[in-house]
Amino acid sequence: MFSWPIRVYYEDTDAGGVVYHASYLAFMERARTEWLRSLELEQDQLILKHQLIFAVRSLTIDYLKPALFNEALVVESSIIKLGKASILFQQQIVRKMNDSSELLIDATVKIAAINAQGETKKAILIPAEIYQIFSASTDSN
Amino acid sequence: MFSWPIRVYYEDTDAGGVVYHASYLAFMERARTEWLRSLELEQDQLILKHQLIFAVRSLTIDYLKPALFNEALVVESSIIKLGKASILFQQQIVRKMNDSSELLIDATVKIAAINAQGETKKAILIPAEIYQIFSASTDSN
Amino acid sequence: MFSWPIRVYYEDTDAGGVVYHASYLAFMERARTEWLRSLELEQDQLILKHQLIFAVRSLTIDYLKPALFNEALVVESSIIKLGKASILFQQQIVRKMNDSSELLIDATVKIAAINAQGETKKAILIPAEIYQIFSASTDSN
Amino acid sequence: MFSWPIRVYYEDTDAGGVVYHASYLAFMERARTEWLRSLELEQDQLILKHQLIFAVRSLTIDYLKPALFNEALVVESSIIKLGKASILFQQQIVRKMNDSSELLIDATVKIAAINAQGETKKAILIPAEIYQIFSASTDSN
Repeated sequence: MFSWPIRVYYEDTDAGGVVYHASYLAFMERARTEWLRSLELEQDQLILKHQLIFAVRSLTIDYLKPALFNEALVVESSIIKLGKASILFQQQIVRKMNDSSELLIDATVKIAAINAQGETKKAILIPAEIYQIFSASTDSN
Repeated sequence: MFSWPIRVYYEDTDAGGVVYHASYLAFMERARTEWLRSLELEQDQLILKHQLIFAVRSLTIDYLKPALFNEALVVESSIIKLGKASILFQQQIVRKMNDSSELLIDATVKIAAINAQGETKKAILIPAEIYQIFSASTDSN
Repeated sequence: MFSWPIRVYYEDTDAGGVVYHASYLAFMERARTEWLRSLELEQDQLILKHQLIFAVRSLTIDYLKPALFNEALVVESSIIKLGKASILFQQQIVRKMNDSSELLIDATVKIAAINAQGETKKAILIPAEIYQIFSASTDSN
Repeated sequence: MFSWPIRVYYEDTDAGGVVYHASYLAFMERARTEWLRSLELEQDQLILKHQLIFAVRSLTIDYLKPALFNEALVVESSIIKLGKASILFQQQIVRKMNDSSELLIDATVKIAAINAQGETKKAILIPAEIYQIFSASTDSN
């Protein structure tokens, strides 16, 4: 599991007094970006070297409890299934307080490898060397 | 079915050259807001008169094709199931070009009625008079 | 003067109960985009045909009164000064209620013509045929 | 001077391939929030204890060079003038690379103390004990 901290700023909230429901998707993407960086994979380099973009193909999200302005959250990301052309993540957003942890968001996100060239965004295989890195990372968890 | 047009501006796109994946959630919420308005239900009045907020409880979304900068889209929203405390919508985002229509996004969104007071956001029943309006609207489609 | 209506949705607001201060910049950009469209200039075509992007070079903004969730606003845009490589706009955001109009936002925005190619975003002259369209539009107002 | 690091994610960029111009305002607000936190002032507590919100009253921003996807930026914030009811900040956003530092954004932001109660957002004086903290912080820099 890869954990990434998120701080809730005004930009993330709405007039309902809670985090806007679409903002959690951005939080989860930051966490996936930082997970890649923790494997020494920088997305701008993946585009340059491999013409590779990781794009969201589908997702399911349950909004269990709202996060509030100024709270400190953690996005916890795990690979459920590593495919040849896609990765299925479970991503949960929790609020840590003292010793307890409250589950706010529970999501499953399918990421596809797509070709960075052109506007058609065709699906491609994950390059072998990168697949190996993902696979090793999954085994070690 | 309720149709609401969306124009894609720079704010909605990302460096991948397409609409940012979380922006579609905002598009779909605009469409639900305008659907309510088409029924003469204004959300600020629902809060004042009924302490009622409609909040996203869960959603599933398939990203079939990307929308691009400057495109004209349409969000098409239908009620799949009207419950006593929640509404299940199907929302599709399509690109209209000439006579054809391309499906870009296919989503199912569960909206719950919640109490506007306090931060706990407790689920409540949809007030009867509003339920009647929704029910009449569904029948007529 | 070019007027463009804006509806305030949840996405535009923050936990302070008002429109988030950066959201007004997006509202003003939508208005400039629609002003271009009213002159039959589509920005995706400007990029393809002229390698031309209009980018914000600087802006000054006064937040006079906050806009609230669900309000109907109008962005009023006028060219103050049309230069060979830039346009200076005044953009005001007003709330229309009954017969009165309240000024919420008063901004001056300098837009520069830049080359769409590459990441350096070099300043260029506004192509002559487009300058003519802007000039004619300014005269007629 | 208070420095706060910012990482550029997809959510911050637009189809022009650079950071969206309104996103820098959010970056600067994160930095002001973290500056308050560095002084042990939490904004949710300021609302509860002092009915105090710090809101942007006006700003001037120069976009000198664009920031790109995935870059590591730093927001550098200094108080130019501490008033009884407002604070004038200079905020600069720089890109650090190796030993050099490139200035991308140069902004002056006026923050006013306003009453958190009600929608009128009336200006108030900065409470004395908080003014002292700001004043001490300015002296020490």
